[in-house]
Amino acid sequence: MADPIQFYFDFSSPYGYFASLEIDALAERHRRAVVWKPIMIGSAFKASGNLPLVDQPLKGAYARHDWERMARMMKAPYRLPDRFPVPSLPPSRAFWWLAEGDGALAKTYARAVYHAYFAENRDISEVAVATELAGRLGIDATALEAAIAEPVWKQRLKDETDAAIAAGVFGSPFFIVDGEGFWGADRLPMIEVWLRDGGW
Amino acid sequence: MADPIQFYFDFSSPYGYFASLEIDALAERHRRAVVWKPIMIGSAFKASGNLPLVDQPLKGAYARHDWERMARMMKAPYRLPDRFPVPSLPPSRAFWWLAEGDGALAKTYARAVYHAYFAENRDISEVAVATELAGRLGIDATALEAAIAEPVWKQRLKDETDAAIAAGVFGSPFFIVDGEGFWGADRLPMIEVWLRDGGW
Repeated sequence: MADPIQFYFDFSSPYGYFASLEIDALAERHRRAVVWKPIMIGSAFKASGNLPLVDQPLKGAYARHDWERMARMMKAPYRLPDRFPVPSLPPSRAFWWLAEGDGALAKTYARAVYHAYFAENRDISEVAVATELAGRLGIDATALEAAIAEPVWKQRLKDETDAAIAAGVFGSPFFIVDGEGFWGADRLPMIEVWLRDGGW
Repeated sequence: MADPIQFYFDFSSPYGYFASLEIDALAERHRRAVVWKPIMIGSAFKASGNLPLVDQPLKGAYARHDWERMARMMKAPYRLPDRFPVPSLPPSRAFWWLAEGDGALAKTYARAVYHAYFAENRDISEVAVATELAGRLGIDATALEAAIAEPVWKQRLKDETDAAIAAGVFGSPFFIVDGEGFWGADRLPMIEVWLRDGGW
């Protein structure tokens, strides 16, 4: 099997959510694995000079509308959360703690976090929400809550974010496939052609 | 036939060039016409707070690389022009003058301008190039050169740009389909699904 696809995202990113619903099935069609990597995209925005979409004139209104229709096209559950965007530190740290022990479980947890935020309007910036979602999956919620507060997992999230920026990541979602960066949920069709053709 | 697709672009935009190679064939598959509308995207950037891609850290390097591989994927002739980006006033004014008399000829001229800039490294900000390209298509080059300097066509380009911004356009290419805005060459697959399904 060829190298896995690196999937960088922020839990607060609607386009990251939409991509998360499709990337594994896309990769599987071409016998690739996907490594999920939550990061703090705000730090990448500082490095690239970008602003969150909703803070930009014209583009912000476009994005709000685009998320609604993209959800309709994909038949995906979606509503813009009441609190948006949020700093997604608790579930991001929890993810990296989980991933250390069980990559598949971490991915399942990440899917639950995205669903809670963009389909159920839960405030994923709250530690209580991050732990509740873990508990529902049979994860030790007390241990996960402790991990969220531990310096080692705070640092791990920072390190993963720095490594992503060093690799050229400047938005969410961002994919690295065979060393090539692809930015945005709307690049999934291009990634599919890349995987089909073995690059160009 | 349903409403034509509005295709907004700047002659200095690589993504506009790539989209120009595909949009008419795409529209034709769904029995739609396409109205081409060159604008001065720098004015739209001022309204939206954006910067040209190549002036943005990380994103600029990404874009340069992405243009190269997009050209390879599309098997389209492409090289980043030596002077890039350029203010594309002469061919843009010439386009609107031509479009007043013959929309099809204006579109043929626009294709020639894009090809000259992104395939042949010609400096399309020069009036001499704008007129030479017209001459090759059998257009009256003297009349076209005069039009480029006339206040009425300078104003027309400003008006079209203002109208585009008022319609929500903030980048190149930008499409309006059935009243819906779609931003970017990478949205062509989404536009195709929209046309196929009759919207969602």
